[in-house]
Amino acid sequence: MKLHVKPIMPNGFKCCSKNCGIKRKGHDLSVFVSEKAANAAGVFTQNKFPGAPVVVGREIIKKGVLQAIVVNSKISNVATGEKGIMDAWKMGELTAIELKLPVESVIMSSTGIIGKELPIDLIEAGLKGISGNLTDNPEIGAEGIMTTDTYPKALSLSVGDATVTVVGKGSGMIEPNMATMLVYIFTDAKIESQKLDLMLRNSVDKSFNMLSIDTDTSTSDTCLIMANGITGSVDENDFSKALDFACIEMAKMLARDGEGATKLLQTEVTSAKNDKDAKYIAKSVINSPLIKTMVYGGDPNIGRLLMAIGKCFSCTIDTERVNISINGRNIYKNSKKYNFDEREVRELLRSDPVVISIDLGIGEARAVAYGCDLTEGYVHENAAYYSS
Amino acid sequence: MKLHVKPIMPNGFKCCSKNCGIKRKGHDLSVFVSEKAANAAGVFTQNKFPGAPVVVGREIIKKGVLQAIVVNSKISNVATGEKGIMDAWKMGELTAIELKLPVESVIMSSTGIIGKELPIDLIEAGLKGISGNLTDNPEIGAEGIMTTDTYPKALSLSVGDATVTVVGKGSGMIEPNMATMLVYIFTDAKIESQKLDLMLRNSVDKSFNMLSIDTDTSTSDTCLIMANGITGSVDENDFSKALDFACIEMAKMLARDGEGATKLLQTEVTSAKNDKDAKYIAKSVINSPLIKTMVYGGDPNIGRLLMAIGKCFSCTIDTERVNISINGRNIYKNSKKYNFDEREVRELLRSDPVVISIDLGIGEARAVAYGCDLTEGYVHENAAYYSS
Repeated sequence: MKLHVKPIMPNGFKCCSKNCGIKRKGHDLSVFVSEKAANAAGVFTQNKFPGAPVVVGREIIKKGVLQAIVVNSKISNVATGEKGIMDAWKMGELTAIELKLPVESVIMSSTGIIGKELPIDLIEAGLKGISGNLTDNPEIGAEGIMTTDTYPKALSLSVGDATVTVVGKGSGMIEPNMATMLVYIFTDAKIESQKLDLMLRNSVDKSFNMLSIDTDTSTSDTCLIMANGITGSVDENDFSKALDFACIEMAKMLARDGEGATKLLQTEVTSAKNDKDAKYIAKSVINSPLIKTMVYGGDPNIGRLLMAIGKCFSCTIDTERVNISINGRNIYKNSKKYNFDEREVRELLRSDPVVISIDLGIGEARAVAYGCDLTEGYVHENAAYYSS
Repeated sequence: MKLHVKPIMPNGFKCCSKNCGIKRKGHDLSVFVSEKAANAAGVFTQNKFPGAPVVVGREIIKKGVLQAIVVNSKISNVATGEKGIMDAWKMGELTAIELKLPVESVIMSSTGIIGKELPIDLIEAGLKGISGNLTDNPEIGAEGIMTTDTYPKALSLSVGDATVTVVGKGSGMIEPNMATMLVYIFTDAKIESQKLDLMLRNSVDKSFNMLSIDTDTSTSDTCLIMANGITGSVDENDFSKALDFACIEMAKMLARDGEGATKLLQTEVTSAKNDKDAKYIAKSVINSPLIKTMVYGGDPNIGRLLMAIGKCFSCTIDTERVNISINGRNIYKNSKKYNFDEREVRELLRSDPVVISIDLGIGEARAVAYGCDLTEGYVHENAAYYSS
């Protein structure tokens, strides 16, 4: 499968973004809209302090139909009580009025600082006339949802005559766990809401749920899909594969642009006893600060890989059967002893991506996790995120 | 309870350390010895790739009697196969010969890089004549077991006429989980091995098992206790309390001197449904990179505390009942909304320690976890640990 060189909104979808005054500079408000009502599905954070837009969004998505998404960045509208819930509804209502849509067809997201009231007046003023700026370019829509992302993220690919386009933001507080950061998927293919929901959950499980920047799970994670059907039916098996591919590619983009990251770190676990073990070990390696810093520094301290596998106390591991490779080069094989060429390992760790493959030699299960290195940049950004 | 101003080895215990050539500079070899055989107990790492000294140490401790401990730093003798096991035994044997003790009364530890062979020749040469340098000062013994620790760690306190002295090292790869980093406890009190084992496990559970520097669990974690009985019996209840206190104080010392750390971060969870929830939430907060960086930067981004509590999916949490304080100042109370004085929170976060208290308002369980802030220094040290 191949991504388009230049992403584009699918037939019947448009988007726009602008600065409405919440951020000092940069876009902070985005709208995505379909010319007709679309079948839709969504998954949300499992955090027990969900943001107001997540609480409201769960209600709205129940009908399986959406026509627009409105998003602001900088303030997440989390831990804001009844006022926050009302502000979330109001944000949807104001967008519906501007776009002349039914209120219940607009869903909203907010991302940014927790515990501050949403500046709904700025959003209200900002939404006025926004429908005059709609464009085909999903990167424009992606601009308004950015927080610490270094660039707007969007990708497109074709399935038959239809297009699948993914717009996302990531950067920090990212280990979604059965949901994801802010990711919106648009397609002009015709697919029923229930099937869409099933396919979305399946793809999210392999992509955003296997992504971790810093083990922290946001209170605002949201992944939505809208299918407006304008281009008609496609082979559903093909669509499902394209959705997997697109979500995994977006997960990699989000990983590589994690806060302070210099590269994508990918872990493949094979021959595990079961899926649970495979995922657990892949996540253990991708989340280990000592491995993340080693990869950042290109330091051949690869004994740390054994440590990160070995600390999975609940998993079935036979230390005599473990094989480890970095970017295809075997560095530890079926024994308690291992040898490697330090200079070669230094080179391997300096590449991007760094792919660590761990074969457990026990069963048939496999999992892949996506993350990034840990740098001074992560510390620097997060030691003053609120104040900056 | 009060720590002695100057730690001292208890009656009948001596120690020493030196550079035997494994490190370019600084001591890398320590010996701790009792003038008579001591009742003993130990707990070790649960990592599935335990180091050779852990494998051998588990055998030696079975009899519940020890007379000496030998430790080297810089090379951990982990993932070194049969040769590693033989080297661990040899390290004990050489020490027994030098100190004129039975071979089975000497236990060994190694700490440092994983996957490199132990330079047993350097250790053999280094041990010769080491018994001529024995001292009462536990900080001398602590010097030889240091890796990235910035200072040697030892503390003493009295229980009746007896003394309890703890020598430890920490710094990185520290979330022991049912065992601990390298910590050796010496006492001249008379206590049976089985009781000692029970009391040790109990104290470790409240102290080193609630300590986390970076969520990574070492392959070499070891905590040993030796009671030589020279001063006679003490009240066992008092001893148990003293042991708790001493272990918690050492855990705090290790946390505050975590790699790159500038301060101690302590989390107290109260009114949890059960012990499991209390420990899980306390660890979630202490391990969150976003909280650790916030505390480092003194950035009042305290909504992240809700995130770290809320991502404990398996725990019972009523978002309406959660109360949070920092160093005794309430910042979030029984509601979905919270307000605080940013300047005051900035000041609170700049103190050392930063104590975060979370009352869940549900049950009776309580837990305290110990950690530190996350700084550029941690990244810097661990991006080139092997090479430096």
